[in-house]
Amino acid sequence: MLPEAIEAMTAVFAQPGNASSLHGSGRWARRRLEEARESVAGSVGARPSEVIFTGGGTESDNLALKGIYWARRQEDPARRRIIVSAVEHHAILDPAMWLQKADDADLVVAPVDDNGFVSPSWLRDDLAAHAGETAVISVMWANNEIGAIQPISEIAAVGAEFGVPVHSDAIQAVGHIPVDFGASGLSALSLAAHKFGGPQGVGALLLRRDVECVPLLHGGGHERDVRSGTQDVAGAVGMATALRVSVDRLPASTSSVQALRERLFDTLLAVPGATVNGPRDDRRLPGNVHVSFEGCEGDSLLMLLDANGVECSTGSACTAGVAQASHVLLAMGLDVPTARGSLRFSLAPSTTEADVDAVAEVIGQVVDRARAAGLVSSPTGKGH
Amino acid sequence: MLPEAIEAMTAVFAQPGNASSLHGSGRWARRRLEEARESVAGSVGARPSEVIFTGGGTESDNLALKGIYWARRQEDPARRRIIVSAVEHHAILDPAMWLQKADDADLVVAPVDDNGFVSPSWLRDDLAAHAGETAVISVMWANNEIGAIQPISEIAAVGAEFGVPVHSDAIQAVGHIPVDFGASGLSALSLAAHKFGGPQGVGALLLRRDVECVPLLHGGGHERDVRSGTQDVAGAVGMATALRVSVDRLPASTSSVQALRERLFDTLLAVPGATVNGPRDDRRLPGNVHVSFEGCEGDSLLMLLDANGVECSTGSACTAGVAQASHVLLAMGLDVPTARGSLRFSLAPSTTEADVDAVAEVIGQVVDRARAAGLVSSPTGKGH
Repeated sequence: MLPEAIEAMTAVFAQPGNASSLHGSGRWARRRLEEARESVAGSVGARPSEVIFTGGGTESDNLALKGIYWARRQEDPARRRIIVSAVEHHAILDPAMWLQKADDADLVVAPVDDNGFVSPSWLRDDLAAHAGETAVISVMWANNEIGAIQPISEIAAVGAEFGVPVHSDAIQAVGHIPVDFGASGLSALSLAAHKFGGPQGVGALLLRRDVECVPLLHGGGHERDVRSGTQDVAGAVGMATALRVSVDRLPASTSSVQALRERLFDTLLAVPGATVNGPRDDRRLPGNVHVSFEGCEGDSLLMLLDANGVECSTGSACTAGVAQASHVLLAMGLDVPTARGSLRFSLAPSTTEADVDAVAEVIGQVVDRARAAGLVSSPTGKGH
Repeated sequence: MLPEAIEAMTAVFAQPGNASSLHGSGRWARRRLEEARESVAGSVGARPSEVIFTGGGTESDNLALKGIYWARRQEDPARRRIIVSAVEHHAILDPAMWLQKADDADLVVAPVDDNGFVSPSWLRDDLAAHAGETAVISVMWANNEIGAIQPISEIAAVGAEFGVPVHSDAIQAVGHIPVDFGASGLSALSLAAHKFGGPQGVGALLLRRDVECVPLLHGGGHERDVRSGTQDVAGAVGMATALRVSVDRLPASTSSVQALRERLFDTLLAVPGATVNGPRDDRRLPGNVHVSFEGCEGDSLLMLLDANGVECSTGSACTAGVAQASHVLLAMGLDVPTARGSLRFSLAPSTTEADVDAVAEVIGQVVDRARAAGLVSSPTGKGH
């Protein structure tokens, strides 16, 4: 967490207050909450009234997908289609599959090319035939595994052309690249504070005023009656602070993070049998590095690197203790062994050349050891 | 917030980590999260595996009511009835009404007596006729307005007798009176951290392992796959700490808070035309005081007291800017003017005799002024 965010939250902790209470402490809390709302809005090109505070990115995604689906279908029962890209996070894929299974939705998965990009023209062709039956579209702003930045404005424009609301999970993008909700043309956008140095358990859904959305959480009528529950004032203040700091330093940090990314790519790709996943240009998140190592198990690489003080992630998700290949990499056309032998590194403005050099020092021997261990399935492997 | 909770959270803030990550920081965060889970469980007589961390009390209530309703109806489509008491919080009433409107539920409201109590024998009679069609029952442990502590074990026993799961919104009870989930016989229980000195935006649903519950938030499969979303490790630690401190001091604090409650009741009831709402005995929360002042508007009283440094609440909720009489008080048989002329005071272990005396000093003149202003509707009145 950014020290500025911790400091701002601690100041609120010291002065409790329920933002819905009428008395003095309540009004103080309400002022802090509304200042945080204005600050978040200002950082991402939204209006304050478009900011719905939530309990995190997964909630924002579920609220957008289910809420807009339910509202649109209520308006017209023919609207049962949900379009999501093949590389969405589980926080979009899983609600979409649940709506299909439990609530009569028709799930359409938009394919991606071998760099993980959705095609606006594919979407246009689809909507030309089926716009009337389509409730909602969700395409992430930037992918959490391979860092591909989608042509989100073009996608939003296609949705607008056919009158179908487009939501974007921008959880990996906000605070890392410029995000302007108003200019994007999107109907809704999810963000999560802990992805840009704010607290866990805090997020927001940006929601245009003209987009109907059925609540997931009913109750006291907070947050435009779209998300009830006593507001987390300290969390909102912490998120607003972290977002402001992250966005303010973007112009200075982007090129240095990008330079480190390229240095790390060069380091990793010097290992024989290593290949980059996703685009290696401006269409990639500045701090995202994703590489497959032939003949390796990602979990083994992760454990060996961790033992050497290097923390990274695999692209794999875990179901019932069995390591599975990433749906993102498979959708891009990778085969299962290559997908399973991949690692993701995340670089931040605080990352240094020395950090990259520390990876360079160990990666060769780590890959050798992982290869010697072979491509055996690791039954205890986990990792969301 | 309790200083111990702030300190515990700040320590976690300083060391970020995603509890689902496999690397060292992730495992550190996971340990903190699981320690918090064990601590919460120990404080309320639950098993660690029964603790589902959520984003607050409203989410816990929505998850329990909708999730258990959906799961039970999925098992048997005949189960469409939902029984809730007439004095539930909006976080239960509103999801129940939504399920009735949008999802084919049959909403049955259990009546209360003039002290706000649900009758276990009413419930037995109802279930004797309709158990087979009943999906879920929700009765709060203690009422947020008038402090009535329900005969929750008897109610849970009636549910168990007929095989219908009983949920309890114990958000006002946990940390204020002894709560033992295992001994209660309940299937599910909601709690919220900010009600016992923990952070806002953090709560838990205690859920027996044998009770099926459809998630509200789908995604990475966190929290027994019942509540997805990156866990708020600092929030869980803050909640666990505040709960432990609150429960530890209950034996010492209860009688002193109760004594202050009686002192405040005596003070308020000395005002001509003042009447107590709810029971005035051991069946009332130690720190809850609720009084109606004849011929007064609650919002006027609140504002005048606030100007004199006394912070309290009205029993009123607000819909579209129009002050409404409390559904709790109306369900207990109060008429609208009496319901609207009521105030709730909350006492904590930190409350002193001097605080009560400060109310005593001003309450007479405040009521006189509010009576002079008369029972005019205040169009800007608000208050959840």
